[in-house]
Amino acid sequence: MKLASKDLLDIESMSPEEIELVLDTTTSFKEVSERTIKKVPTLRGRTIINLFFEASTRTRVSFELAAKRLSADAINVSAAGSSLSKGETLIDTVRNLQAMAPDVIVMRHGASGAPHTVANMVDASVVNAGDGMHEHPTQALLDAYTIREAKGTLSQLKVVIVGDLLHSRVFRSNLRLLTKMGSHVVVTGPPTLIPPHISKLGAEVAPTMDDAIAGADVVMMLRVQKERMAGAFFPSVREYFRLYALTEARLERAKPDAIIMHPGPLNRGLEIDSRVADGPHSLILDQVTNGVAVRMAVLYLLTGGQHGGPEKEEEEKHA
Amino acid sequence: MKLASKDLLDIESMSPEEIELVLDTTTSFKEVSERTIKKVPTLRGRTIINLFFEASTRTRVSFELAAKRLSADAINVSAAGSSLSKGETLIDTVRNLQAMAPDVIVMRHGASGAPHTVANMVDASVVNAGDGMHEHPTQALLDAYTIREAKGTLSQLKVVIVGDLLHSRVFRSNLRLLTKMGSHVVVTGPPTLIPPHISKLGAEVAPTMDDAIAGADVVMMLRVQKERMAGAFFPSVREYFRLYALTEARLERAKPDAIIMHPGPLNRGLEIDSRVADGPHSLILDQVTNGVAVRMAVLYLLTGGQHGGPEKEEEEKHA
Amino acid sequence: MKLASKDLLDIESMSPEEIELVLDTTTSFKEVSERTIKKVPTLRGRTIINLFFEASTRTRVSFELAAKRLSADAINVSAAGSSLSKGETLIDTVRNLQAMAPDVIVMRHGASGAPHTVANMVDASVVNAGDGMHEHPTQALLDAYTIREAKGTLSQLKVVIVGDLLHSRVFRSNLRLLTKMGSHVVVTGPPTLIPPHISKLGAEVAPTMDDAIAGADVVMMLRVQKERMAGAFFPSVREYFRLYALTEARLERAKPDAIIMHPGPLNRGLEIDSRVADGPHSLILDQVTNGVAVRMAVLYLLTGGQHGGPEKEEEEKHA
Repeated sequence: MKLASKDLLDIESMSPEEIELVLDTTTSFKEVSERTIKKVPTLRGRTIINLFFEASTRTRVSFELAAKRLSADAINVSAAGSSLSKGETLIDTVRNLQAMAPDVIVMRHGASGAPHTVANMVDASVVNAGDGMHEHPTQALLDAYTIREAKGTLSQLKVVIVGDLLHSRVFRSNLRLLTKMGSHVVVTGPPTLIPPHISKLGAEVAPTMDDAIAGADVVMMLRVQKERMAGAFFPSVREYFRLYALTEARLERAKPDAIIMHPGPLNRGLEIDSRVADGPHSLILDQVTNGVAVRMAVLYLLTGGQHGGPEKEEEEKHA
Repeated sequence: MKLASKDLLDIESMSPEEIELVLDTTTSFKEVSERTIKKVPTLRGRTIINLFFEASTRTRVSFELAAKRLSADAINVSAAGSSLSKGETLIDTVRNLQAMAPDVIVMRHGASGAPHTVANMVDASVVNAGDGMHEHPTQALLDAYTIREAKGTLSQLKVVIVGDLLHSRVFRSNLRLLTKMGSHVVVTGPPTLIPPHISKLGAEVAPTMDDAIAGADVVMMLRVQKERMAGAFFPSVREYFRLYALTEARLERAKPDAIIMHPGPLNRGLEIDSRVADGPHSLILDQVTNGVAVRMAVLYLLTGGQHGGPEKEEEEKHA
Repeated sequence: MKLASKDLLDIESMSPEEIELVLDTTTSFKEVSERTIKKVPTLRGRTIINLFFEASTRTRVSFELAAKRLSADAINVSAAGSSLSKGETLIDTVRNLQAMAPDVIVMRHGASGAPHTVANMVDASVVNAGDGMHEHPTQALLDAYTIREAKGTLSQLKVVIVGDLLHSRVFRSNLRLLTKMGSHVVVTGPPTLIPPHISKLGAEVAPTMDDAIAGADVVMMLRVQKERMAGAFFPSVREYFRLYALTEARLERAKPDAIIMHPGPLNRGLEIDSRVADGPHSLILDQVTNGVAVRMAVLYLLTGGQHGGPEKEEEEKHA
């Protein structure tokens, strides 16, 4: 089985089978990063361009590592110092990159839908690494991998997502993925940060954090994105913490084996208490580890890889 | 045959035979980027430093890709975050890099002649990737490759170069190359942006765009470099477009098989109409594609490669 | 023999035997950068992250080259564009990087002790590439290598260190290393820039530059770190040059075969006269060359290498 599209732009257009293909393929790549020699020759001679119009450490490093551990050539392009500052359009920037024959363009952009526009104009595969408030599909896939690893399934779970739903592309991608896979998503957060009509997308809105978290299998906390909030969406940090932060007391309402997730970076003491973030239920760092493996799987599948991961290619002999 | 100099600093000091050597060598490297495995082991273990004192996406990425597809180790150094901000002189920065044993230093600098100064102080080969308003030789070489590919020759052509001639290192390098190879260069642009005594360098100045373009084989549009213009060199964007932009109507005065070129980034609607930039005569993206191949050839030749390109080295077996 | 710690954080905690282990191992790596193919497969498939919270050209490039010439995958992360700008703590940034399974984190940070804190939290080896005004151990090791190469020994030498001792991590690391190895360190500089109680660390404070330099085997000039000086530590550049700069006249008081060192970047005409910096006694560029080799040795030893350098691994056959 292969992915139907040349691109990975959003969860919305993926079938459950495609999602499972990515997750199954991830398993075989996760093992690579656990070796001493963390490298397979799978994508040798392929070119991956990381085109980031928004700052990012973890996502760029995760994709760059994924590319390098697959032996691809990785090229980083950031908005600072790009031709965009010379008045070039996004389309022209991307067409120019395309003319240099990349295999994959990994792209983060502040405008929702920008990667979709780009994908239509280039032969290269485009991976959406976050577009405005729209989607961040590899984040949802790594979250799904982490949940499946812990729970053995992605269906019939109660997943609670808490916080700044309005600005969160992580939330949108997760909501789509989890409902597709048969789980029940309950959300809560400040009323000003809950998108209207969210229930049409399959989310149940709970009036309070305590209501939301009751009996949860998975609690996914979103980052308060201070830098995205032009207006005053909630009264104060103290108020936010009191009403929506994940604390040990609150966690007791979830299932005893509930897992805690957060896409990072953490605002400790704002949306999550450090005792929870660093506690036994937290899989926050597992998410990061799985992120590299999911991205290896995505790069592999988009460049023509088949179900099941690398064809048991041996490590290069001279290693 | 080899290049006479250890450096590639300008077109001015290259012989026609050297120019043809680079172009002939380019052909064998162009094919590499068309493969699935876009990589040859030619420069394995060589160190290429990209030292950019001016921002650039396309040129830096083009050189970085060229280095990586030759299997060289590429190191990027940009002015932001460099020791220069600690008061070090250019010479000391470069001497320090030289002490780390690079094979090639690719250098872009705002001061005309800076790469020449550097080249005299280091053992490494220096490639001028643009120095002030002086030269940008690999751009002229990729332009020449593109013209030769389309026209089969570089002699006896009428090449029109339009726009901001005064600030353009692309123009200076192209003028030198094209006259050396026996073509006729006609220029036009706002009188304030035509360098004095330009006819001594072999360019014919046409009074209007319509005069210039009549019967042209090649029309090369220069970018209006807003960021380089301290003064007001022309009245307005609308005026510039009316007098000097390349439009479909104007293009009809050129030969039926005329080709359109632009070094990028494009100012659409300023120096070039989008219908022309994206039309059937445009080779603008071919220029970008050829840029990677020309730079592979230059890196190869400067590090000791012989005429004819890589010695039919096979791809690495473990690929 | 191996290094006792998984990390290289400071000279203070290294034994003389460990220092000699690094220096002996350096010799076998220095030769690699003198080859045409400057690359050994020693660390293939290992991941080295360069995490720089302060700008640096030479140190970052030196570590990046060291990693690449060992065939490791090198990833650069700079403070600009990092998650820190989103309010993440240093610990969380590093934990996240750790979750991506790096072998070594090379770290420069403005806060003294930051790498020590990090080292305790991660499995990866941490190399301190400069922490505030505390230590810069690989600089002291490359200085020691350079001295030993020139003098044949690190004991019984008179080493003079001049200048801004107060702000200098280079000074602190060198003082510790040189006294450990049995040399005599004499310091001088503006009284406002001499740390109190410095004699307790084994340094003799000389009242004037002329006193300090008399009979010196090694003269190590420190950079006036204009950017670190919040206050006015000395009256003027002219005054500083008159009292503390290394000039040819002053150098005559040292031993005839004295060597001159400087960690760079140079302030020519401030702490050092150009005739001395570029003169026959200067080993300033040798320091840079040795820096790459020392860092190769450190990366090699921290990732499990044994005494004596790479196990005579042959170059990859397809090179």
